Amino acid sequence: MTSFSDLILKRESCRSYTGESVDTSLLMKCVDAARLAPSACNSQPWKYYIVNDEKNAQSVRDCIQHNNMNKFADKCPAFAIVTEQPATLKAHIAAQVHSQKWAQNDVGISVAHYCLQAADSGLGTCIIGWLDEDMLHEKLGIPAEEKIRLVIATGKPVEAQPRSKVRKPIEEICTVIK
Amino acid sequence: MTSFSDLILKRESCRSYTGESVDTSLLMKCVDAARLAPSACNSQPWKYYIVNDEKNAQSVRDCIQHNNMNKFADKCPAFAIVTEQPATLKAHIAAQVHSQKWAQNDVGISVAHYCLQAADSGLGTCIIGWLDEDMLHEKLGIPAEEKIRLVIATGKPVEAQPRSKVRKPIEEICTVIK
Repeated sequence: MTSFSDLILKRESCRSYTGESVDTSLLMKCVDAARLAPSACNSQPWKYYIVNDEKNAQSVRDCIQHNNMNKFADKCPAFAIVTEQPATLKAHIAAQVHSQKWAQNDVGISVAHYCLQAADSGLGTCIIGWLDEDMLHEKLGIPAEEKIRLVIATGKPVEAQPRSKVRKPIEEICTVIK
Repeated sequence: MTSFSDLILKRESCRSYTGESVDTSLLMKCVDAARLAPSACNSQPWKYYIVNDEKNAQSVRDCIQHNNMNKFADKCPAFAIVTEQPATLKAHIAAQVHSQKWAQNDVGISVAHYCLQAADSGLGTCIIGWLDEDMLHEKLGIPAEEKIRLVIATGKPVEAQPRSKVRKPIEEICTVIK
């Protein structure tokens, strides 16, 4: 079992996949972790479209590789397409919080659950924002009214030591107010 | 050690705190987990302001309790105020992705790391979006150019069995494309 601190280090943006297929049940375990994430007013404003066959995977690649981006996806067998649903907030709350649009935060929280669960299950993930939204709607049959936020490449990683993480030092992102 | 599946169940929106003080080092461990989250182009567009003394905690409460909301925060000793920084994306990417505003997703991902680390450390959290942003800027001295997204109440929970989670069934939030 991996400690949570270690799991955070193990989760990294994986751009090197073995190409092996992945059991759909493992992907569903990631979606279930995403499902259990918290959200504003428990609105759960997310939907996951899972692609785990070569024909549809190629369709997804067609939508995320324009301008020579995301070439690594050629060897990734599975993808989750994450859409944002219109959040249904309690009316008295919604009336006062126009500027915040919590749904996008909520999608992020849910995606974090997905990726950490994947790492815990030995899967690599890469969160991809470079996507042709119209083409994804069209090729994968995703309803037009759902905003596509992200695609998560998911597959078996070529095993290696996790890279050390390049991040701002904690003093730069955190202030203790006194 | 808690498995990740169990950690997800343990993490819940905590609205019942003992009132005990929390070591700042424990809060910093949560921030460090948040710091290690992934983000678009590794832009890390977040900042955490930690409040862990009664005077400033009361100032935070003043900013999140209007209209009789969040009364439970009276017994919460510590808060993280999370701001969104303008993301610095690679120029050729930024030029093509105006509509997405990934920074808000990224803040969500980072906040999930914070809350899961808190749960792993035996702390309760509640993500609060109901806040008076102007008042927080003013009372806590947070720079005007930083968008305040969320406040995370953090403290020792009154111990109880985790509530069972009320969520949409997986069939409602997930479609396997065939």
